[in-house]
Amino acid sequence: MTELTLKVKVERKTIDKSDLLEDLLALESPLTIYFNEKEIVTLLCTPAFLEELAVGFLAAEAMIKTKEDITDIYLDEEKGAIWIEGVEQPMAEKMFLKRYITTGCGKGTTFYNVLDAQIPPVESNFTVKVGKLLSLMQEIQLKSELFQETGGVHGNALSNGEKILMFRDDIGRHNATDKILGRCFLDGIDLADKILLTSGRISSEILIKVAKMGIPIIVSRSAPTALAVKLAEKLGVTVVGFARAKRCNVYTFSERVID
Amino acid sequence: MTELTLKVKVERKTIDKSDLLEDLLALESPLTIYFNEKEIVTLLCTPAFLEELAVGFLAAEAMIKTKEDITDIYLDEEKGAIWIEGVEQPMAEKMFLKRYITTGCGKGTTFYNVLDAQIPPVESNFTVKVGKLLSLMQEIQLKSELFQETGGVHGNALSNGEKILMFRDDIGRHNATDKILGRCFLDGIDLADKILLTSGRISSEILIKVAKMGIPIIVSRSAPTALAVKLAEKLGVTVVGFARAKRCNVYTFSERVID
Repeated sequence: MTELTLKVKVERKTIDKSDLLEDLLALESPLTIYFNEKEIVTLLCTPAFLEELAVGFLAAEAMIKTKEDITDIYLDEEKGAIWIEGVEQPMAEKMFLKRYITTGCGKGTTFYNVLDAQIPPVESNFTVKVGKLLSLMQEIQLKSELFQETGGVHGNALSNGEKILMFRDDIGRHNATDKILGRCFLDGIDLADKILLTSGRISSEILIKVAKMGIPIIVSRSAPTALAVKLAEKLGVTVVGFARAKRCNVYTFSERVID
Repeated sequence: MTELTLKVKVERKTIDKSDLLEDLLALESPLTIYFNEKEIVTLLCTPAFLEELAVGFLAAEAMIKTKEDITDIYLDEEKGAIWIEGVEQPMAEKMFLKRYITTGCGKGTTFYNVLDAQIPPVESNFTVKVGKLLSLMQEIQLKSELFQETGGVHGNALSNGEKILMFRDDIGRHNATDKILGRCFLDGIDLADKILLTSGRISSEILIKVAKMGIPIIVSRSAPTALAVKLAEKLGVTVVGFARAKRCNVYTFSERVID
């Protein structure tokens, strides 16, 4: 049992009997992010790697541009709050508030938003071998201890095409991605030759996050949406779906996935 | 092929070959909801049952209380926008904007929000037989044509414990729930003796939506989070997880699931 689970009593019922058992559930906690004392967002997340989550969220929203923009990070885990101090991007916060008022859960990070229409396409000559990509995907299947315990989280991983560099899981698909982006932002990791692997579907929101951070390839065990593929064509991202066992579907920029 | 899919060209790659095939992707479209001319939210959704989605969203957010509060609904599918006119609940919009500014994707519909702390617990003597519940769950597995075609959507169903009354699928878990809640709201269906069945995880957000609408039982093939179970205890909701084939786990108020 990791500290990211809660042990609960559960009645396991079948048609003719009922057993009282113990079960492990994934924790889900709110994290409220403050940027220069302003309340920005409350995310519901797996309570681990919270600095990375907050930094990744602000970076993906273009509210901070470089690591040097951050002057202080203070996390209060008990309160479920994190305060980040730093240099603000003048327009970003205004646009962010506009976006969140008008988009809610869907997060609307599509070209229907002013800011996103300005994302430059990812330019990268990075390639990965299809066999390598499939074995990386199988590796992340095995990596998530929390998933194996609870069946309730999404796993994301960053790879250079050779090995898994980083793995994060979270009850929220977006959070798992933000945690990886946050670590890369803090460590100054170049993303132009990296792959994001995810256990979840590829929606337009994840696609835009990946494009904004300049990652050329996203791979999922599951399906992309039609809108994600359409945006990927415009934003220069290679979308690989249904990456399972011995095959995968490459929807866009297939020249980056080589034999 | 339903009209909710897009046919795309895809390269299916294995280690030693690459085939050009056609694949069907689930559509993902933005829907902007206006209430009395004010822009409320843009959801990314499967473009079907959009009136139900908009009404269900406003109802679950307590911005409308009864069907009679709605005086007009106008949908422009091409623009991806819907206008609802009606009687506003005085505090709801203010609280909604507050909530969305401060919570974003997590939607923060937990007790960390003022409004949610006021939800009355669900009081219902409704019961369902465990065998019936398991066969209903298998039935919704078969129902989703869109899932079978695309692998990319969540299915939700409403049942009276005997049969499936309504089934909706959507690329967003919350949307599938809102579509069902919206139909019930428009048809004046009593929810105190109904069950919501879902293919997705039970997070705190879905749990609160269900409690707000007064549904006593939620069932998933997948896992609940620890927070969802904690909230269910306070809000009088029976949480059933891992409902698969011959067994299920009952986390709260197990007296509603009988032999």
